[in-house]
Amino acid sequence: MKKVHIREAIATDAAAILALIQELADFEREPDAVAVTEKEFVQDGFGDNPLFQCFVAEISQKIVGIALFYRCYSTWKGKSWHLEDLIVTKAERGKGIGFALLKKFISFAHDSGVRRIQWAVLDWNTPAINFYEKHGATVFSDWKITQMTNGAMQKFIAKNHASI
Amino acid sequence: MKKVHIREAIATDAAAILALIQELADFEREPDAVAVTEKEFVQDGFGDNPLFQCFVAEISQKIVGIALFYRCYSTWKGKSWHLEDLIVTKAERGKGIGFALLKKFISFAHDSGVRRIQWAVLDWNTPAINFYEKHGATVFSDWKITQMTNGAMQKFIAKNHASI
Repeated sequence: MKKVHIREAIATDAAAILALIQELADFEREPDAVAVTEKEFVQDGFGDNPLFQCFVAEISQKIVGIALFYRCYSTWKGKSWHLEDLIVTKAERGKGIGFALLKKFISFAHDSGVRRIQWAVLDWNTPAINFYEKHGATVFSDWKITQMTNGAMQKFIAKNHASI
Repeated sequence: MKKVHIREAIATDAAAILALIQELADFEREPDAVAVTEKEFVQDGFGDNPLFQCFVAEISQKIVGIALFYRCYSTWKGKSWHLEDLIVTKAERGKGIGFALLKKFISFAHDSGVRRIQWAVLDWNTPAINFYEKHGATVFSDWKITQMTNGAMQKFIAKNHASI
């Protein structure tokens, strides 16, 4: 197996990272979901006040996987990290790269002194669920993620304008 | 009905906010879950680099509700906000205070220019689910929230130490 190198992402990795994010969107059956542009992604992640951090896995200088995460907050457990994406390109799966990225993230999070870390997994992605549980994570079935799009926000505000 | 006043939280609100967080933990059948201390909460939320923001609802200068949220990041939709807690004390429920706090949060989030906002709801909390859906949010059933405690992180690191 060729050597896998894990390192912190830098701004010039943005295009390669976004390619993996698009690959995940395709896998999750949402090919048109990625609205973030490369310019925006560079500003958001690599500017003065980064909104996320990212580790990349490289083989022969090619980025084949990412662990992208951001600081979050639990009113029960305090400061925490949310792992937003753990992606390995299809051709390189099954070689331990996802595990290496997860290890790097867990090690980083533990060193930062948080009481807990979190992420989300799709309920039909059994291999991922088994992988996380095997390594000591708890997969909850009683929470439902709720989202409101910009369009829904606008509609809500227009409807309730008088009382805002 | 007495007038409800919504405003941004300040450091001296911490004890009253934590009392509501404890009330929610009791409601969610996890009375011993709150590990955050008041000192830590003040540092985390009201220091130089706040990890969360909070609106409080007051009646006659008494805090009866909160909407506590933090900046998050979607690799599909970009910068976003996660509503961590929307709490109204039991005695003041059914008076529109939760709705007023939700409005304030949605209005704030929309003004900040994000494409999406998010939160989580317990699957047995049907009144909350109905409330959110009525106001245009989408409640997903295919994502599972996954967490790893500090103890599980330590165990994982010890087990995989040689390869980290």
